[in-house]
This record gives sequence, structure tokens and C-alpha cells, in this order.
Amino acid sequence: MPTEAQTAAPYRVADLSLAEAGRHQIRLAENEMPGLMALREEFGASQPLAGARIAGSLHMTVQTAVLIETLVALGAQVRWASCNIFSTQDEAAAAVAVGPTGTPDARAGVPVFAWKGETLEEYWWCTSRIFDWTAEAAAVGADWAGPNLILDDGGDATMLVHTGADAEAAGAAPVAGADASAEWKIVLDTVAASLETSADRWTRIAADIEGVTEETTTGVHRLYELSRNGQLRFPAINVNDSVTKSKFDNKYGIRHSLPDGLNRATDVLMGGKVAFVVGYGDVGKGAAEALRGQGARVIVSEVDPICALQAAMDGYQVARLADVVDTVDMVITCTGNLGVVGVDEMLGLKHLAIVANVGHFDNEIDMAGLESLPGVEKVEIKPQVHEWRLPTGRSILVLSEGRLMNLGNATGHPSFVMSNSFTNQVLAQIELHTRRDEYPTGVYVLPKHLDEKVARLHLGALGVELTELRPEQAAYIGVPVEGPFKPEHYRY
Amino acid sequence: MPTEAQTAAPYRVADLSLAEAGRHQIRLAENEMPGLMALREEFGASQPLAGARIAGSLHMTVQTAVLIETLVALGAQVRWASCNIFSTQDEAAAAVAVGPTGTPDARAGVPVFAWKGETLEEYWWCTSRIFDWTAEAAAVGADWAGPNLILDDGGDATMLVHTGADAEAAGAAPVAGADASAEWKIVLDTVAASLETSADRWTRIAADIEGVTEETTTGVHRLYELSRNGQLRFPAINVNDSVTKSKFDNKYGIRHSLPDGLNRATDVLMGGKVAFVVGYGDVGKGAAEALRGQGARVIVSEVDPICALQAAMDGYQVARLADVVDTVDMVITCTGNLGVVGVDEMLGLKHLAIVANVGHFDNEIDMAGLESLPGVEKVEIKPQVHEWRLPTGRSILVLSEGRLMNLGNATGHPSFVMSNSFTNQVLAQIELHTRRDEYPTGVYVLPKHLDEKVARLHLGALGVELTELRPEQAAYIGVPVEGPFKPEHYRY
Amino acid sequence: MPTEAQTAAPYRVADLSLAEAGRHQIRLAENEMPGLMALREEFGASQPLAGARIAGSLHMTVQTAVLIETLVALGAQVRWASCNIFSTQDEAAAAVAVGPTGTPDARAGVPVFAWKGETLEEYWWCTSRIFDWTAEAAAVGADWAGPNLILDDGGDATMLVHTGADAEAAGAAPVAGADASAEWKIVLDTVAASLETSADRWTRIAADIEGVTEETTTGVHRLYELSRNGQLRFPAINVNDSVTKSKFDNKYGIRHSLPDGLNRATDVLMGGKVAFVVGYGDVGKGAAEALRGQGARVIVSEVDPICALQAAMDGYQVARLADVVDTVDMVITCTGNLGVVGVDEMLGLKHLAIVANVGHFDNEIDMAGLESLPGVEKVEIKPQVHEWRLPTGRSILVLSEGRLMNLGNATGHPSFVMSNSFTNQVLAQIELHTRRDEYPTGVYVLPKHLDEKVARLHLGALGVELTELRPEQAAYIGVPVEGPFKPEHYRY
Amino acid sequence: MPTEAQTAAPYRVADLSLAEAGRHQIRLAENEMPGLMALREEFGASQPLAGARIAGSLHMTVQTAVLIETLVALGAQVRWASCNIFSTQDEAAAAVAVGPTGTPDARAGVPVFAWKGETLEEYWWCTSRIFDWTAEAAAVGADWAGPNLILDDGGDATMLVHTGADAEAAGAAPVAGADASAEWKIVLDTVAASLETSADRWTRIAADIEGVTEETTTGVHRLYELSRNGQLRFPAINVNDSVTKSKFDNKYGIRHSLPDGLNRATDVLMGGKVAFVVGYGDVGKGAAEALRGQGARVIVSEVDPICALQAAMDGYQVARLADVVDTVDMVITCTGNLGVVGVDEMLGLKHLAIVANVGHFDNEIDMAGLESLPGVEKVEIKPQVHEWRLPTGRSILVLSEGRLMNLGNATGHPSFVMSNSFTNQVLAQIELHTRRDEYPTGVYVLPKHLDEKVARLHLGALGVELTELRPEQAAYIGVPVEGPFKPEHYRY
Repeated sequence: MPTEAQTAAPYRVADLSLAEAGRHQIRLAENEMPGLMALREEFGASQPLAGARIAGSLHMTVQTAVLIETLVALGAQVRWASCNIFSTQDEAAAAVAVGPTGTPDARAGVPVFAWKGETLEEYWWCTSRIFDWTAEAAAVGADWAGPNLILDDGGDATMLVHTGADAEAAGAAPVAGADASAEWKIVLDTVAASLETSADRWTRIAADIEGVTEETTTGVHRLYELSRNGQLRFPAINVNDSVTKSKFDNKYGIRHSLPDGLNRATDVLMGGKVAFVVGYGDVGKGAAEALRGQGARVIVSEVDPICALQAAMDGYQVARLADVVDTVDMVITCTGNLGVVGVDEMLGLKHLAIVANVGHFDNEIDMAGLESLPGVEKVEIKPQVHEWRLPTGRSILVLSEGRLMNLGNATGHPSFVMSNSFTNQVLAQIELHTRRDEYPTGVYVLPKHLDEKVARLHLGALGVELTELRPEQAAYIGVPVEGPFKPEHYRY
Repeated sequence: MPTEAQTAAPYRVADLSLAEAGRHQIRLAENEMPGLMALREEFGASQPLAGARIAGSLHMTVQTAVLIETLVALGAQVRWASCNIFSTQDEAAAAVAVGPTGTPDARAGVPVFAWKGETLEEYWWCTSRIFDWTAEAAAVGADWAGPNLILDDGGDATMLVHTGADAEAAGAAPVAGADASAEWKIVLDTVAASLETSADRWTRIAADIEGVTEETTTGVHRLYELSRNGQLRFPAINVNDSVTKSKFDNKYGIRHSLPDGLNRATDVLMGGKVAFVVGYGDVGKGAAEALRGQGARVIVSEVDPICALQAAMDGYQVARLADVVDTVDMVITCTGNLGVVGVDEMLGLKHLAIVANVGHFDNEIDMAGLESLPGVEKVEIKPQVHEWRLPTGRSILVLSEGRLMNLGNATGHPSFVMSNSFTNQVLAQIELHTRRDEYPTGVYVLPKHLDEKVARLHLGALGVELTELRPEQAAYIGVPVEGPFKPEHYRY
Repeated sequence: MPTEAQTAAPYRVADLSLAEAGRHQIRLAENEMPGLMALREEFGASQPLAGARIAGSLHMTVQTAVLIETLVALGAQVRWASCNIFSTQDEAAAAVAVGPTGTPDARAGVPVFAWKGETLEEYWWCTSRIFDWTAEAAAVGADWAGPNLILDDGGDATMLVHTGADAEAAGAAPVAGADASAEWKIVLDTVAASLETSADRWTRIAADIEGVTEETTTGVHRLYELSRNGQLRFPAINVNDSVTKSKFDNKYGIRHSLPDGLNRATDVLMGGKVAFVVGYGDVGKGAAEALRGQGARVIVSEVDPICALQAAMDGYQVARLADVVDTVDMVITCTGNLGVVGVDEMLGLKHLAIVANVGHFDNEIDMAGLESLPGVEKVEIKPQVHEWRLPTGRSILVLSEGRLMNLGNATGHPSFVMSNSFTNQVLAQIELHTRRDEYPTGVYVLPKHLDEKVARLHLGALGVELTELRPEQAAYIGVPVEGPFKPEHYRY
Repeated sequence: MPTEAQTAAPYRVADLSLAEAGRHQIRLAENEMPGLMALREEFGASQPLAGARIAGSLHMTVQTAVLIETLVALGAQVRWASCNIFSTQDEAAAAVAVGPTGTPDARAGVPVFAWKGETLEEYWWCTSRIFDWTAEAAAVGADWAGPNLILDDGGDATMLVHTGADAEAAGAAPVAGADASAEWKIVLDTVAASLETSADRWTRIAADIEGVTEETTTGVHRLYELSRNGQLRFPAINVNDSVTKSKFDNKYGIRHSLPDGLNRATDVLMGGKVAFVVGYGDVGKGAAEALRGQGARVIVSEVDPICALQAAMDGYQVARLADVVDTVDMVITCTGNLGVVGVDEMLGLKHLAIVANVGHFDNEIDMAGLESLPGVEKVEIKPQVHEWRLPTGRSILVLSEGRLMNLGNATGHPSFVMSNSFTNQVLAQIELHTRRDEYPTGVYVLPKHLDEKVARLHLGALGVELTELRPEQAAYIGVPVEGPFKPEHYRY
């Protein structure tokens, strides 16, 4: 666990000397993130995020570095942690901590708490750090400050605030049940420790928060649940369901980063192999397209008959994993659900079949079941690539310990895709900070004109020439010449 | 114009002797329409459409024949017209008029008024006939009856009722403006003629209508406008925006029927050619996929930046037609808007370039402008295929007079795709007829559980094996084990 | 059988009144056949085929019409028959018989003997007619003439000459064996009848022939066999194995015409269906690509391990038909071999599965076995589409009686593809006629520079801009700047 | 330059401690190289390579490790160097040097001389080492030995022997011309140094060589040239033109390793980008397919009209680089020619466009011209990735210094693909060693039955079920039941 000195330090990263390498990559990434760079140009002068204190919890990658520095360029103060123990790119974290010194737009570094390969304890310590604005408060002579905005991915930061504040209301942290996960116990310990030093820390933080902008399906799901149950403590913008996020990041991002992760992890040929894709949502659609594009034969499983029919119409076999498991060379989970690959199925796969997750949490694959299998042996081939020798005499290769392999084995989604998602994030942060009256506590998606704006900011870089509606055409279909062009229910 | 005897006749089709050929095709189509056949099995005994008098206005194809006979099998009385002057398959119309005589499920024919190649006057006469239930009334000793349900495609039947009833309320048919289309004048003439014989015919009809189920974008657009303006006279179900319609019929249907129409019309190789697709909605997506699947190089134009970005991410060049027109071998319009290919662009195309519309109305291509171009000459190559010799010395080939070429030059969408759309139609008709209290006047989409049901009924025929959620998985993502599985805003 | 008057007539086609419609299509096809049109321009003045008397046996389609008229434009006299009883397009045959009257390049018609739906007797009568140059001889005051060149597709014309001449050498036609096909008996009858009127007709014809240019795999196979056995009577150019034929016609032609034939025959959706492709040569590669491009799931069978591995690497399942037959919605044969779909397999297919051949002869599918199956019933759905009701209670749909469905159910390969093949044919005819000393009896492929020329003549129409080698680049890879660019063994 | 001690050492690699990591990867690779493993099983007992002393010059990767250990398992002695200064995987080299100690098939290490990032002097020193069999000679009491087989990739080892022996015949090394490359001077220095210690070393080596098996286009090209000029000193088998090499390694290998290299080097999204592929041979075909599979828009350039037409028919724009250069995001060279991307074109590319070579030598891109451009600045982003800041103010990213980026930025072709190529290599080595009488000096391709055998050995791993010809089918097409199935000229 971190020492006291580490807790007092303004940031914590793996190796500051990686900053220059990180800065090179950030510079290249800026060229691939035209949406964020356009926002810097549009809003650099007006500083709409002045006064914003953003607690960010999102994979600390090169692309996130460009996001962070865009938030700062728009006037925000920022503290940052990763939302995944394996996903930090240490050179990006170092560069952000140091700041773009010596460059035309030199500015100070940002307090970042992230490194590749955190323990779970370290992870939650890092997440706690983004809520500790003591130094920033001191700098302006205040005795306390918390963040007033959260930028979240998966909902861990939001959950910590809610769990903390709920515990403070109850006067005690809840007790972990017998079957609680190791991670949940750490969260409760974190809250319990907080309670010992302050009875209202999280309550005060929650009260100050103008809102959260949430990046991904899982986090959004939690937010709607909190809202439905009347437990949500501040407004939330569901960035995940912007079209320019869910239909781009989820689909085109995975199309890029899944084969990248497979290659870096294993160098195994995809062509000619049987690849089984669990789930045919946007992530599964991108995964299947990527694998087919490499000559794999893709089999899909689905629970939703509409998505199953789409998969069939797109030319994929749709089957249950158990029924075809002995022909499968690689299984890719894309669901956001739990236990979609079970131990029995892992036992049935071909020798040295690859098992990888691009859905969300590590419980998509029954890693707990695998670990407790009598006689199983785990051999590290290289970091994030493990051969599990099974009692059957066969082995399987599990990537990134069952966590997101596109982050653990590769570098996540490419900059251009993330520019779409992150331009949504920045616009959502601006909405919450500058129009807070229009967002009473609840969960919102961004208005369509902003969604279309995100797309528009990315066209030039791809050489796209947009056609303009003539006024009589706009009138004929009943939309403004400049958009928005589609009804809310349009599916793209 | 039809004679009096024709008006009195129980149906009007091109050639009754085609009935046997049509019946063969209907029988094959039934094998490809598992959704409709499953509804016959599920509801054949309970007859949920008993008492329904359905006025149908939808392309009179083989697939529609299976729809019509499904409605009848569920207890409905039906009268039918096509919604397009070129789209009728005469053998299907004949078979429906005759009925499945001599077969195990023999039943009487249905009054159908449709043939391939109607004039506009004939078209509106046919449409009027589906509202004339005199014979059916007489059969049960009543002196008058109108339909109590409309099944519409493009909204012509619904528009006629509204125009008629509005005229009756005003005491006179509106006068056509100077720039009114020839067709609109015919509609107004039709209404005016009706007013001369009855002051309240359309008012009574409108009052009896339990609702309309509308098939397509254009018709849905009209319905929302009527509803917004407070002019809608009965509830409407927007079938078009069922996922199993818009994402299947529009996309996969066009993927099939666009190349089919091009082939039957011109036999021109698509491979290696430059195909320009106007619009990248669902129809454009299907068109682009089909053309690329045949080796064409596809260029897309779009007005909506989100769809434009999708096209780019799918690997297509996105440009304005005018900028690349001299490299284009074929232009396919997929918009539902007007004038998306103008005369200047037609003048700029390569010699013998193909111009074809799979969007909706014939005004997508500026046919009026083309016709009035000085020195232009129109040569019929074969029916629905015309060479237009331009003053430039070049020619272009216009298919189906600028109307829907997948219907005019081919046989429309294939049965399996239409089975999805039409299963939605039947379920929507059942909803309106059996739960009318739940649908006050307004525009609705089908509930998601019915949308998923439509998909489910089509899986078996494709050999799809659906995976079932385990209860803990359903709980984890917060849905019932049997669905519905997705929030309303999910985009598929 | 034809009457005496028919035999005396200068041509025999189905319906001369179709000539104008055929001429329209020929005119459009000319725009799609830039190779042939370029040859007319290059060689129109020098008339390299002056003195050539060409007996042509090749599907009498619109594209063949452009070929025929190109041969004529280069100075040849031509007589023509189809090489398949179902493949003639009657409007094309009529237009060729009439000639391009009233057009800028008006010239007389060509003696063509072909119509859609010949009996086998009629077929061989037509084939005999192309060797009867009595009229042409009379026109120049000679008492006898035969052709001096054959343009063949499948080798029937060549085989007839060899069988006839061999019989004349033996003094008698061979006697058909007990298991001879009906067609072989007709050939022998034809030869026997000829022997009754002349003892040396075929011998004289064979002696006059400068050579044959052969279009397709099957015919080429026969030629190599004749050559190996020392029985070949004149030189032959194997056009099939020009790269611009085998890798274009076979692959891209089938990619186009297979789905076209399926659509016109059945209107059945390909998307989501299981399509089984027998054979993964060039034809199978084109078939698989077309079906996948329409969203079908393709399974391939192969006997050659190299082609099988290619199929796997291209992402297709490779299986034996018998092993997966009960999941198959359509079987497409692409082999050139016999009995690749047997009766047992037809009995095992799904209800109303489609069985279609794009390989070569009708024996690819065991039609004889199907016909003799006890209890089988054949129902004509429409011409060239038959439902075979099987004793299992299921049915299958067999297209074009098991013959080439892309010709029988559609219009064959599109003009642009055929322009490549036919430009090879014309160049090969010129080679044989103008350089006969360089081609002693044997089988040849066209020299690579001509193969490359064929490609070059088709680039402009597709907007292709070729890069030119700089001299130092040409030297570096050891080729002339203007080509040929590849060694003979290069596989493309 | 290496010290004397290094020259005396039995091997030279970067870091022996990487051996365990390398062994893990070798073990996984063995599972992906079924062809090589099958040869170990088939020939392990009979030891056909007993007595073979193989000098190997081929990228020292994990896959090559499995090749080397297969050669050893079949009885050969082996010495190895890489054929590229950047392509060595240091952990593989270490593992091979150490040998599979402690494993069931433990055996001694192999003398390997290779590390990632050799200088040119080091490279040629390493290549010299594989011809120095002093230690092996000493072990059997001989005073001298050279290799008796060469396994070459690109022809450097073969060229060194020929240059050396020619110099010995001439009595002096040739003098480098004024415009000789730096590398050529090093080769001549190497030869000159050898001449100082021995007047006949290379002559003796050349005399002992039973033959060379050559892996790639460039090397094969050199061999045919030597043979044409009567300068070839021993037989050669052209492994490159086995179908299972050229149509698999070149196409499917690049399809895999090109995007892999792009990702590892730059993490740049390919989707939506304009990717320019120079050359549409097998390598270009694989590159284009991979890029399209990732959603890039691919433009191709070609000098050969046949390949250009193929590219067009496959749906790609075909243009000259100079004409579209300002729209291009990445250029991939696939030609084997020189100067296909010139300085003018690099100056015209978009800012931060990627320039990468998967053809062969670094002269495909005019790196010399780029380096000598006044005002140009080279910034290392990370190893093998350089930003070149151009006088225009724009930058480009050049990968692997213009050398093969799939080796320099990634790990080369995947094991399964290399298993095909390397199974050909082993079979070719066996042919030369065991049937040397059948291969007089000249250049050969492997007989087709061995080519088909290579394919056959790889089917099982992909679940391919081969169909077997029935005897009557084999007779019908005139091939043996067990193959070979195709004529030599067949193009696949």
C-alpha cells in the first residue's frame, strides 16, 4: 500500500522519465483527435470550464491525456485516476503529470494517480485521491474542497461517492456479505476508513457535484438503476448513448483494438480460424467484422432474437458456445454480462484456444471458477498472457487475466475513435457546468445537435465532403437546414 | 378510366389466367415467410381479426399475397390496392383474386384492384375501391360499411381519408395550386367527385377507423406531421420503426433487391464500376453493401454528419455528387427526399450511366426537370428502362421512370425480409383491433416484446440457435429472462 | 426436327421481330465491351480476318452478338450456333440474323442457328449448320467450302469435326455403347447420316481448318487429351487460360451472374442462408464471394488441398456436403466434374433447397439419378425452375434442369466480363489466321503481351490510371518498360 | 565490430536470459505450425537430413526457431544468421542458441548469430559466420568443413558465396563503383578480407554445396538471373513459387502482419483513412484486403494492366500516387521494385501520413533521397518509428527506416503462415539432399505433389474436411484420385 509520502505527493505514476516518450505520442495523438483540438480552438478563449474541478476516472492512456489537457485548456482543474488496473500507459501518465513543458502551449502537470498493474488496493487508493482536493483548496486559501464534476468510466468514482455518502447517512459502512467479491470488500474498507476520519466527507462531496458524465454501458446501467430507485444524488449525462460514442467507440474502436490485442498477446494467425464472438451488440459487431476482415470464420452467440437475426443476416453462424466449443480457436466476450464463458466451456475448447474479454468486467469469463478448478496450473507466457493447463491435458490462453484485453494487451481504442467519445465527454462536462439549471437530478443523453456536432468535427480529417440540404429539401423532410436531421428514435 | 362494369366488379387485375403461376410462387414464398406462417398457426383458432375490415394499400406482390391471406386466416375481411403504379406482380394479384382454390386451405378470393402499369387516374381509382365496402355490407344486410382498419404503405390511403374528410368538413375540395403536381390534382378530383355524391362519406369512414398501420418512412413522416398539427383522425402504429422492419427491410431488403433490379434492367457488370449512393441511412447502407459485395467502388453522399462519418468509417468515399459526377457509372438514390439528383448532375454523368431510385417517390430524381430539358430524347430500351439522349450527346439510363426500381425492375424485397415487416403489420393490426383502448389517437411504435417476437419467429428457418440468459445473468443486467432485452433507445 | 425449308434457310431463330429489341441491347452492350470496340478501331482498316470463314459455337447472347459483329468488322465471314440448348437470348439471335440495318455501321446479317429451348436433336442440327458453307461457296462461284476457323466453347464443334473425320477414316460411325448418353447417340446419328451422303466431308473440313480457339475449361481439357493422344487435327489456342479469361470470366463473371440467376429463378433471399459451394476454383471463388456479399453463410467443399486451404484462409467453412446437408438452403456446383451432387445428398437437403449448377455440364448434378428416383414428382414452377417432390415429403428446386443456371435462368456473364474473354478470342483468331506458321498442330495459350493487351483495353472504361515503370525500375526487375511484366508461371 | 572472442564464440545473440521467454513462445508456435510438426513425426526416425550441414540466412524469429529445430530433428547440422538487420526476435535467438533444455525433446543449442538492430558491418559478419564450420569440422577430427546446403531468404548467403568464389577465380575482389551502396562496399570488403587469408575458401564452399532453397521473390529473381547468365554454381529450389508459399505467405501473411505492424508502430486508426497500396501482386492483395477489413479506403497503383484490372474488379480505385497524394493517410509499398515512393510524393502527403514498406528492400521508398533533402529533420518517436519533419512544415512517419515494417515493427508473419512456407523449405532441403541426381545445376520449383502435401498437412488444424474424388470422377477429369489435381499452369 502507498506510503504516507506517496499520499502527500502531487501525483503517482510508474516512471516520470517516460514523460518525453509520452509527449511524443500525445503530439501524434492530437493529430488524430480533431474533435478535441477543435474544441480547444472554439472554447480556448471563453473558458467555459473555468471553476470546474473535475475528478476523472478513466483509462489513463495517451488519448485520455489529450482529453485531460483539453479540459484544462477550457479552464478546468483536473485530478485523474485510471478505471482499470491494467489499462494505464505509463508514458502517458508520466507526460500528463509533467505537463507539456517546453512546448508552445506549456502548462503545469495534472495530478494523476495511475500505473499499469495496480493491485486492487492500489486501484481504490488512486480512486480516492481524485476526491482529495486539499492541495487545490490550500492554493486558494480554502480549508476544504472537493470536485464539482465527475468524469467516469464504468461508474466506480460515482459508486464510491454514493457508497460513502450512504454509509455516512447510515452512520456506518455496510458489512460485506459472505459471498462479496474481494474488490467489494476493499471498497467497503475504503469507506469505513473514511468514516473513521470524517463523518460527512462523502456527503459534502456529493452535495458539491454538479453532475457526472459517464462513458460506458456498465456505468450507465448503474446510473439508471440509481435513478429508478431514487438514490441518484446528482445529474448524470449518459455519454455512452451518444450515437457518436456507442456506434463509434464500441463498434469501430473494438474493430481496431481487438485484433491489435490478439496480435500483441499471441501473434496467432486469425485467418482460417474459428472465432466465437459472445454477444452481437455494437462491441460484438465490431469484433465480428474485424475477425472476418482477417479471414477468420466467426460464430456468434446471442440472447436477444433481434441481434441474433442481425448476426445471421450479416452472414454469421449463430450458435450456443457449448454446442460448437470443440471447434473453437478463440472466444471473444462482448456482453457486459457475467459468466458468459463458464468453466465447462473452457474445458471443452481446443488446445491453446484463446479466451479474451472486450466486454467489460473480468467476471464475463468465469475466472473465479477457472482458478478454483482442481489441478489447474497457470503459467505466465508473458505479462497479461497466461497459459492455463487444464486437468484435461489441454491448455487455454487467457488474456489480461480475463479483464479488457484491448486495454491490457494493446493500447485501447485508437485516438480517432476516442476523439469522438471524448468530444462528447467535454461537451457533456460543459453542459453540466454551464447549464446546470437545465439538468435536474436524473440521467440524460446529450441533445442531438451536439451529437451531430461531434461527428461534424471529425469529417475534415477524413476528407469527407458533406452535402448541404437545400431549403426546399429541408422543408420537404421537415428539418432545419443545419440539422438536427433525425428523430430521437432513429437508430443509425 | 375504368368502366362502370369494372367499378362494379369484385376485383380488377391484369389477367386472371396468371393465377396458377401466382399460386406456385405464393406457395414457395410461404416457405420463406416463417413469421406469417407462425402467426397463422398461433392465431388461426382464436381469430383475433374477426370483425376487422381492412383497407390495404401496399405493393401487390407475391409476398403481400401471403400477408393478405394471413390477415384472412386470422379472421379479417380485406380489400386491397397497390401503393405504386408499377409494383404489382400480376400473377400474385390474380392468385389473390381467385383465392387458394383446390388447396388444403382453400378459401375465397380477395377483392384486389391492382395491375402493373396503372395510370395515375387508375391508381387513385384503385385506391378508392378499397374504401367501398358496399358488397360486403350487402352480404350482411347492412346498407353501408367502410373499413375499420387501414394497412398503408406511404400513406396514400390515409391521406385520401383525411383529405376527403377535411373537404367534407370544409364543404368543398381544396383547389389545386398553380404548382400542384399532376397527381395531387387527381387526388383532389377524386375527392371533389366524392363530394358530389356524398357529403359525409369520408367523415363516416374516418370515424369508423380503429387505426392505421403504416409501413414506410414517408408515410410515418406524414402521420407524425398530422399528429403534431392535431389533424390525425385515428390512432396509427408506425410499423416502419420496428427494429425488425427498419433495420431489416430497409437494409437487407435493399441489399437484395437493388442488384436484382440493376441486373434485370441492364445486365451491366457492377464490379469495377463507380457506384454513387445518395444517402447513408438504412437503405443507403444496404445499397452500399450490395454494390461493394459485387466489386463496385462506392461513393456516398450525406447531409447528416453522423451518417457521413459512419460511411467513412465503413470505408466509403464521401463526396458531393456534383464533385465526382464525371466518374460515376451508376447513381442510386436512397433518401426519401426530393431532387437529390438534379438535371445538372444528370448532364454530367458518364455516357450510359444508370440513374435509379430506391428511396421513395419519383421526385428523388428530378424527372420533371429531365423531361423538360430542351432537346432531350427518351428511347424505350424495354419496359421500365429508358435511354435519355441528352443535348450533350451523351445518354443516361433511367430505370422505372425514376420510381422505385427494386419494385419496377425487379420483384421487390424477397419474401424472408418481407416476412419480418409483415409480421409486424399483422401484430400491429391485432393490437389496434383487440386493444383499441390502449391506443388513443396518436402515433405509436410496437412494444419491444412484439418486435423481439417478430425476430424470434424467423430464427428457426435460418438455423439460428438462441442462447438463453440464466436467471442470475438476467438479474445482473436487469432484464427478464425472456426479454425484452434492450432499453427503448437502443440502436441495434 | 427441322424441315427441308428450314435447312435451306439462311438462318433460324425464334422470332425475327425481336431484332429491334436485340439491337437496343447490343448497342448498350457495345458500351460495356471496350476491348472489342477498341479492336474494331485498331483493325477495322487492315482487315486481318479477311478470308477467314469462322464456324462459331458459343452461347448466342447479346455479348456474343458484339463478338460476332467484331469478327465481321475485321473481315471475317461467320456462321453461328449456340453451345447450349437453353442459353440463347432470342432477341440477340434475331438482331444478329438481321444485322445492324439502318445504323451508321449497317451491314448484312449473319447466318445464326440458335433459339432458347432447343431439343438435343435441334442442337446438333444447328451445330451441323455452321459447317455448311454451301451458300457462301456459291456466292463466290465455288462448289464447296467449309470453315477455316472454329471458335468453340466446350468443344462440341471441334468434337463433331474429329468424330466425323475419324468415322470417315474408319469407314463407319462408331456404334454407341449400351451406356452411351442420349446425346452421344444423336452425335453418332449425325455423323452416320453425313457418311451416307459424303465419305469425306469432315475430312475435307478438318483439313481446311487453320485452328480452333476454345473458350472454356471443359473444351480445353478435351483438346489437351486429343493432343496427348496424337489425335488433334489442327492447332488450338486455349483462350480459357489467358489470365484475362480464367481469372475474370470464371471469377468475376460468376460473381455477377450467379446471384442474378438465383434472383430471377426464385426471388429467394440469400442473406442469412446457408449456401454450399462445391469446388473452390475460380468459379467457386466468384460464387462464394457473391453469396457472402449478399450475407449468406458459405460452406465450401474441395478435393484439392491447396484450394481447400485457400477457402479456409478466406474464412469459409470447408466440409463435405453429406456431413452438413441438412442445414443447407442452396447448393451451387462449380467443378466441371460429374456427380458432385448425388441423389442421397438431394434427399438430405432442407425443404425447398435450391440446387443449381454454374460448373459446366448437367451431369455435375446427378439429374439422371433424380429422374429415376421412385416416387419423385417434377412440377414446373416456371420455365427453368422445377420443384422436385421427393419421396421424403420434402421438395427441392432444381434450376435450368441442372444445366448452367447463369445462362438458363439469367443472361450469362455481363458484357464487360465477356469483353475480356472475347477480346482474347478475337486476338486468338487473328493469331491463327495471320501467323499460322507459328502454330503447328498443338495446344497454345496466347502470348502474355496479348493477355496484358486485353487487360489494357479495359482499363479506361473503369477510370483506371496505370502507373508506368521508369526505365531504371524496369531494369531493376528485368522487364521491358511496356511489359510483359510477369514470368509465365506467375499466378495473379 | 565483433571482438576476436566474439568470433570464436559458438553463437552471438543479444541476451541469453531471454531464452526461457523465447522457449514459451516457441512452444506456442509449434501448436500453430502443424506442417513442421508433422514432418518431425514423419521423418524423425528416418533422418533424411543426416549429413546435411545447412547454412541458414533467414529472419531469426520464433517461427524460424521451429524451422531450425525441425531441420535438426531430421538429422541436419545447422548454423544460422538473420537476413535483415532489424528482424531478429532476441528471445527466439536466445532460445535457439540455448536449445530446448529440460524439455522432453532436449537437444543442444544451434550456433545462431543474430540480434535486433545489427549494423550493416555486423550483419555481414553474422552472414560470414554461417559459412565457418571450423568447430563442427574439429568435432569430427576434420581440418575443414563448409556447409553443404544453403537455406536462403533474399539471396544474401548465396550472393556472398558467388561473389567470393568469383573473386577467387579473378584473384581479387571487385572494386566498388562510385555509386555503389554502402552495403555493397561492405560485402566487397568482406570478400577482400577473406582473400587475404585464403585464396580458395569460397571456391571450396561453393563446390561442396548441394544446393540452395530460396524463400523469396527477390532471391529467386537473382537466381534466375545467375542461371540465365551461366553463373549459377549449384542447383536451387525456388520455394517462393510453391503455391503454398507465394499465395499464402505473401498474401495471407501480409494480411495479418501489415495491420499488426501499423498498430504497434503508431496506434493509428485505419478505419476511414485513405490507404494507398503500391502494387497489387500477392503482397498488395493481402495488404489491400487487410486495410479494407479495417474500414480503410484503399487506393492501389499498378504498372501491370492485368493486376490493375484485378484491383478495379475487386472494388479498389486504381490511380497514380502523385495524382492523389494529398488525400493519402498511409502509403504501403508492396512491389519488390525500387523508388516506388519518391521524395516528391513524400513531400505531397498529408501531415503525419505513414510511409511503410512490406515489399522487400529499403530502396522501395527513396530513403536516400529523403535523407539528403535540405532542411529535413528526423525525430525518433520510438525505435523503428521516425517522424521526418519536411521543409513544407508537414511531417511524415516512416516505419522501420523504410525496411520491412512487418518485421521491424511487428513480429513478421504468424506461425501458421510460416508453417506453410517452412514446410516447403524442409521438403526442398530433403529433395536436394536425398535426390541430388535429379537436380542438376539450375532453378526448380517443388513438384506439385509436394506443394499439395504442404497444404494437406495444414488442413486438420483448421478443421477442414477434404472431399475425396471417387474413381469415376478422377477418371472424368483425368487426374489420380490422390492428386496432383491441377496442371502446372493453374493459377489458384
